[in-house]
Amino acid sequence: MNKVKAGMIGTGFSATSQLEQLRRLNHVEVVAIAASSKEKALEKANQFGIRKAYGDYNELINDPEVEVIHNCTPNHLHFPINKAVLLAGKHLLSEKPLAMNSDESAELNELAKKSSGVSGVCFNYRHYPLVAQAREAVAGGEYGKPNLVYGGYVQDWLLYDTDYNWRLNPEHNGASRAIADIGSHWCDTVQHVLGKKIVEVFADLKTVHPVRRKPKDHLTTFSTSKEAERVDVKITTEDYGSVLVHFEDGVHGVFTVSQVSAGRKNRLYFEIAAEKATLAWDQEEPNRLWIGQRDEPNRELVRDASLLSPQAAKLVHYPGGHQEGWPDGLKNLFLDFYGAVMRRKTGTEQETVSSFATFDDGHRIMRLIDAILESHRAKKWIQIY
Amino acid sequence: MNKVKAGMIGTGFSATSQLEQLRRLNHVEVVAIAASSKEKALEKANQFGIRKAYGDYNELINDPEVEVIHNCTPNHLHFPINKAVLLAGKHLLSEKPLAMNSDESAELNELAKKSSGVSGVCFNYRHYPLVAQAREAVAGGEYGKPNLVYGGYVQDWLLYDTDYNWRLNPEHNGASRAIADIGSHWCDTVQHVLGKKIVEVFADLKTVHPVRRKPKDHLTTFSTSKEAERVDVKITTEDYGSVLVHFEDGVHGVFTVSQVSAGRKNRLYFEIAAEKATLAWDQEEPNRLWIGQRDEPNRELVRDASLLSPQAAKLVHYPGGHQEGWPDGLKNLFLDFYGAVMRRKTGTEQETVSSFATFDDGHRIMRLIDAILESHRAKKWIQIY
Amino acid sequence: MNKVKAGMIGTGFSATSQLEQLRRLNHVEVVAIAASSKEKALEKANQFGIRKAYGDYNELINDPEVEVIHNCTPNHLHFPINKAVLLAGKHLLSEKPLAMNSDESAELNELAKKSSGVSGVCFNYRHYPLVAQAREAVAGGEYGKPNLVYGGYVQDWLLYDTDYNWRLNPEHNGASRAIADIGSHWCDTVQHVLGKKIVEVFADLKTVHPVRRKPKDHLTTFSTSKEAERVDVKITTEDYGSVLVHFEDGVHGVFTVSQVSAGRKNRLYFEIAAEKATLAWDQEEPNRLWIGQRDEPNRELVRDASLLSPQAAKLVHYPGGHQEGWPDGLKNLFLDFYGAVMRRKTGTEQETVSSFATFDDGHRIMRLIDAILESHRAKKWIQIY
Amino acid sequence: MNKVKAGMIGTGFSATSQLEQLRRLNHVEVVAIAASSKEKALEKANQFGIRKAYGDYNELINDPEVEVIHNCTPNHLHFPINKAVLLAGKHLLSEKPLAMNSDESAELNELAKKSSGVSGVCFNYRHYPLVAQAREAVAGGEYGKPNLVYGGYVQDWLLYDTDYNWRLNPEHNGASRAIADIGSHWCDTVQHVLGKKIVEVFADLKTVHPVRRKPKDHLTTFSTSKEAERVDVKITTEDYGSVLVHFEDGVHGVFTVSQVSAGRKNRLYFEIAAEKATLAWDQEEPNRLWIGQRDEPNRELVRDASLLSPQAAKLVHYPGGHQEGWPDGLKNLFLDFYGAVMRRKTGTEQETVSSFATFDDGHRIMRLIDAILESHRAKKWIQIY
Repeated sequence: MNKVKAGMIGTGFSATSQLEQLRRLNHVEVVAIAASSKEKALEKANQFGIRKAYGDYNELINDPEVEVIHNCTPNHLHFPINKAVLLAGKHLLSEKPLAMNSDESAELNELAKKSSGVSGVCFNYRHYPLVAQAREAVAGGEYGKPNLVYGGYVQDWLLYDTDYNWRLNPEHNGASRAIADIGSHWCDTVQHVLGKKIVEVFADLKTVHPVRRKPKDHLTTFSTSKEAERVDVKITTEDYGSVLVHFEDGVHGVFTVSQVSAGRKNRLYFEIAAEKATLAWDQEEPNRLWIGQRDEPNRELVRDASLLSPQAAKLVHYPGGHQEGWPDGLKNLFLDFYGAVMRRKTGTEQETVSSFATFDDGHRIMRLIDAILESHRAKKWIQIY
Repeated sequence: MNKVKAGMIGTGFSATSQLEQLRRLNHVEVVAIAASSKEKALEKANQFGIRKAYGDYNELINDPEVEVIHNCTPNHLHFPINKAVLLAGKHLLSEKPLAMNSDESAELNELAKKSSGVSGVCFNYRHYPLVAQAREAVAGGEYGKPNLVYGGYVQDWLLYDTDYNWRLNPEHNGASRAIADIGSHWCDTVQHVLGKKIVEVFADLKTVHPVRRKPKDHLTTFSTSKEAERVDVKITTEDYGSVLVHFEDGVHGVFTVSQVSAGRKNRLYFEIAAEKATLAWDQEEPNRLWIGQRDEPNRELVRDASLLSPQAAKLVHYPGGHQEGWPDGLKNLFLDFYGAVMRRKTGTEQETVSSFATFDDGHRIMRLIDAILESHRAKKWIQIY
Repeated sequence: MNKVKAGMIGTGFSATSQLEQLRRLNHVEVVAIAASSKEKALEKANQFGIRKAYGDYNELINDPEVEVIHNCTPNHLHFPINKAVLLAGKHLLSEKPLAMNSDESAELNELAKKSSGVSGVCFNYRHYPLVAQAREAVAGGEYGKPNLVYGGYVQDWLLYDTDYNWRLNPEHNGASRAIADIGSHWCDTVQHVLGKKIVEVFADLKTVHPVRRKPKDHLTTFSTSKEAERVDVKITTEDYGSVLVHFEDGVHGVFTVSQVSAGRKNRLYFEIAAEKATLAWDQEEPNRLWIGQRDEPNRELVRDASLLSPQAAKLVHYPGGHQEGWPDGLKNLFLDFYGAVMRRKTGTEQETVSSFATFDDGHRIMRLIDAILESHRAKKWIQIY
Repeated sequence: MNKVKAGMIGTGFSATSQLEQLRRLNHVEVVAIAASSKEKALEKANQFGIRKAYGDYNELINDPEVEVIHNCTPNHLHFPINKAVLLAGKHLLSEKPLAMNSDESAELNELAKKSSGVSGVCFNYRHYPLVAQAREAVAGGEYGKPNLVYGGYVQDWLLYDTDYNWRLNPEHNGASRAIADIGSHWCDTVQHVLGKKIVEVFADLKTVHPVRRKPKDHLTTFSTSKEAERVDVKITTEDYGSVLVHFEDGVHGVFTVSQVSAGRKNRLYFEIAAEKATLAWDQEEPNRLWIGQRDEPNRELVRDASLLSPQAAKLVHYPGGHQEGWPDGLKNLFLDFYGAVMRRKTGTEQETVSSFATFDDGHRIMRLIDAILESHRAKKWIQIY
């Protein structure tokens, strides 16, 4: 079998997760990894059995063996790397957000349209079987027209004012935090399920800890030592936001994001109220879709291939009750993306529809984030035309 | 035992529920009932073994035996009846909303302050044991300062455009429906738990069915015959609303109301993210309070007197696992309200604190509803000073 | 309205609960109460507004005004009181168990058959709407023939060896405890739902605390003072039991009872695996019936009259989402029992079917308990012919 | 990095699942696969990029490059293959059951003790983080002595009499089905958590479909065509069983297995009632451990490394809320087993304790199955000495 050759840029949580899940694909081989230093790259290369290690991402991009590039760097590097890859005409899967702002993402989107490579964004929650099922049910009109959608994405990893991480620094993460990091996932997932875009927003944001006490020493993400000497850092990005949203075609809704909700680890949930049924899904119980009805008992649809629609069933790899989770969703994203790469390589792409987020989707999310920030500042509804 | 003598005005769902729960109190006797006709009043009087039946509510108000009056009429009658009762100096428990608008409720609130009677509003969700527990935990600072609150109140009883009821007529129900009918409950419950008032709102409302097909014949609330001849009725009140809220002291939040969410029967839920814990409660699973934590396992606190604080434990009448529900919450409201009546009668009221909503609370809720409607119209944040 | 006149014997938890729920019936009046002393009877009579108080239960039985008698005494008094009531020809609702052993219950059952009064046993879990729904679904063959049933009834109120109560004394409670007190409820409920009798049992019982440390002083049920002086008491009745059961018609199953399962307050649950569906119900979430299916999504049937069968819907008194619980189940039992009493009085009883447990049912449960004890001793399957 | 070289025997669900999960390990390479024909082996080899394909398992066993062998064949081949591998002195991970009966497993166990290779059995449910956590909590005495354990393992994949599969043929699967296939998992998991062996059993088994209608044509496991011509096949193995169990040290319990419980996909659950807490875990919600308490709120412990004990935390590979499932548990088993292999190779094995099931464990489970079958036949308690 002729494997597609991939290269990874980055060595953090996202890179590591992706490397592990890429292994589960039959037709992909990661042949190179790049990091901010050759040493860091070598260390991960050894760990994952990757043949080549680069201390400069340009070397990886220019390596002729590398066909597909995974951009798993911190946010402020997304733009330059994505641009370089697109200009090199290679296939590109970028971590979200595409860039630091929508001017940059607009540029990338234009480049992507002209590129001979396939390009996608890691909005992984689309790739759960029951999310796909919800999308198909909506598209097929099984439950009538959607009217409302409400939900959120709440976490607790930044609960205390002593929690610190590079994501709190707007120079590395961008002007928005909770909205950009997790709200973007909610918006992408829900837009995907509805098959409709958000066209108008009104936002209320809040920085619960306007000052955080950052440890003086260099910090890895998960250092929690409480005795560390600390220094006050002013925080300008939001810990919380609630956003009223209007979709194309008159769907109204709202979502809430929070990184300071104790006990909530990664709770992305949505509830879509359609004419004949309500669909509710919670990422922390991903193997179950609740379907509320008025004239019949509610339904609990579980991740069992025999119960799902054909497209959704393809995302199921283990029997009912053999629960799949977050890593499996990521694997599904790769199966989808690399399927498109294979079809592009073999010129058969017209035959199938992909589910992954395109650079067009990713750029639209960037404009959505901009609109949310602007709405909060201006206290006005803002259109995303 | 010398029982307090009560009179009921109304014969609908609210009146019937209240009559049944009042029977569970040792020290209360309903001695009279009034309806829009003597016949209707007599029928209910016979059913519930009530001695006197009136076809005019003024007769009941003027009956010297009647000490406490329950106003369970449709919304447009709340104001004139409440006013008459207050002017008569009797104790008054009014269904919510207090009136059709905040001008009327302001007048009632002034009268209530001068009245020698105790007056209260039926915001019954305060009176669940685990709601009381949440309030005490917040007040005691056990979980630190609350930062955020989000939730909603969703139902499905008006899902179809063939659903019709007097509440859809603004002349009987007021200018707001979903917000006034169920949103008001959410606001009252959460304000009560937080011990803080909402001071600013931004609202987005939607009438999902701008036209409903009302049966031509006279309709009882629950008639669902589909074959009936129908006539189109324009609907001006909202089926849905999401409202961004700011509380005193910087708590931010949002709530969603819907009467068109299939499968959701009466789901009032809230989640309060405080400094050290998140408290989540769902009226459809009222015997459980979820307490999220970051550094320890989350907690599931169940309605068991031995586990609750002293005030909350008083609202528990059956052992743990012997679940109590909506009727029991209503009973607790009456125990609370009649306790205040007894203390007023015996001049001992300084000793105890009541939990029921006062006319001041009810008036503030009316102003909140006005502000929400105004915000939606003006697309602006509106203060409730 | 001509009310049926009832008398209560007993003043404990069962008596108090029943007095409160009886008040919710339109057509019943409790006119007398008897206790072990006139003082105790008077106290409860005052509390509940009951006209007559007796220090001797025979006086109450012989009071010509009393038509229906509620026997809410400790177990060892069930037999003599039930016998006296039956001989007096009055209507009788007895707490379970009917007597201390099946010889006694056989005698009562014979008397009941000859009595002109209606007689019933307080197996209250039959009277939840979703239990009734499950029974109707099974009887109607909607889900095919039941094949299996498994479940249990677990609590934690006797978790510690310092927990003590009259129920631990076999002279007052009988030779079985966990099986008789809670296992009997499971058996009655499941037999009722299946419409089939248990005909064979194999049991394994265990006394987790063979010695308990009883406080020296007189104890009320819920005294938990840990500093009390204590005396060792040998315990002969079981804290735990698991029983394999065979029903008529080949249904196999098993149930577990425990009074030492920390965190479980009153968890009676069962799961019936039938040909086409599995029905699961948990008394601690009584407003929901889970219906498992293989070829379709599972169903969550909630307590909403519009979704239930006609008989089950009659047990629903509040709208969907307005949860009803344990007190409401007890009220339903009384509505059912007093319905039969009214029909007996008016000679119309042939028209309707009651749901409450008869003395025949109660006697069979006594024989089942005997068989379970014998099976455990003999380590053999025991038939209940 | 010097990878350990593995060989796979088998191409079914078990083999495929294992091949996929093995890829996630850094230090393992599957170099060969054997099947019943060279063609089948080649097909899977191509799919998974395996270098060598054999049509005879002996060739694979004798391949000097192969160090570790995974035996994923149907049950009746477990014994001869396991024996051959052990005699070859290679490392061996066998699917459960070890053999067709305990005579065979006894022989294997003796061989395993003398073998220079590491040998293990695929009881994968030990390897979930919250199962490991429960084991550590029990071992550490955190919740006091366990007293009781109850639970089961229920599925619906053989619900209809038209369901057919090789597992229904005792010549391929052995004399027991539901007990051997899924009951063995329950027993292994619970024995592992308790750190105690089952020493006595009493069983009640049932074949719900004594005749099944097998399609005439050759069948793959999941063919469900209903129109197929069918032939009646007599079924001798059980669809259901409930087994009373006594553990060392006086723990009593019971478990239920069923393959005919509609809607239950793979529900392995247990509840351990210990002196101070009850631990409940359900394989279908594997990221949560419920810890019941009497004097404090119950606890919900979620799979978050920061909340778990050090050993359990090692089984967590993704952050809290990023749910892991069945594939991840299998990966953990391999990490554990290959860790032991590496230590054996490097002579460092005294330093660490493994968690995987040994051949001693596997043999004991075989004896347990024998005892359960004998108990059912003889209607007696049977000891496993």
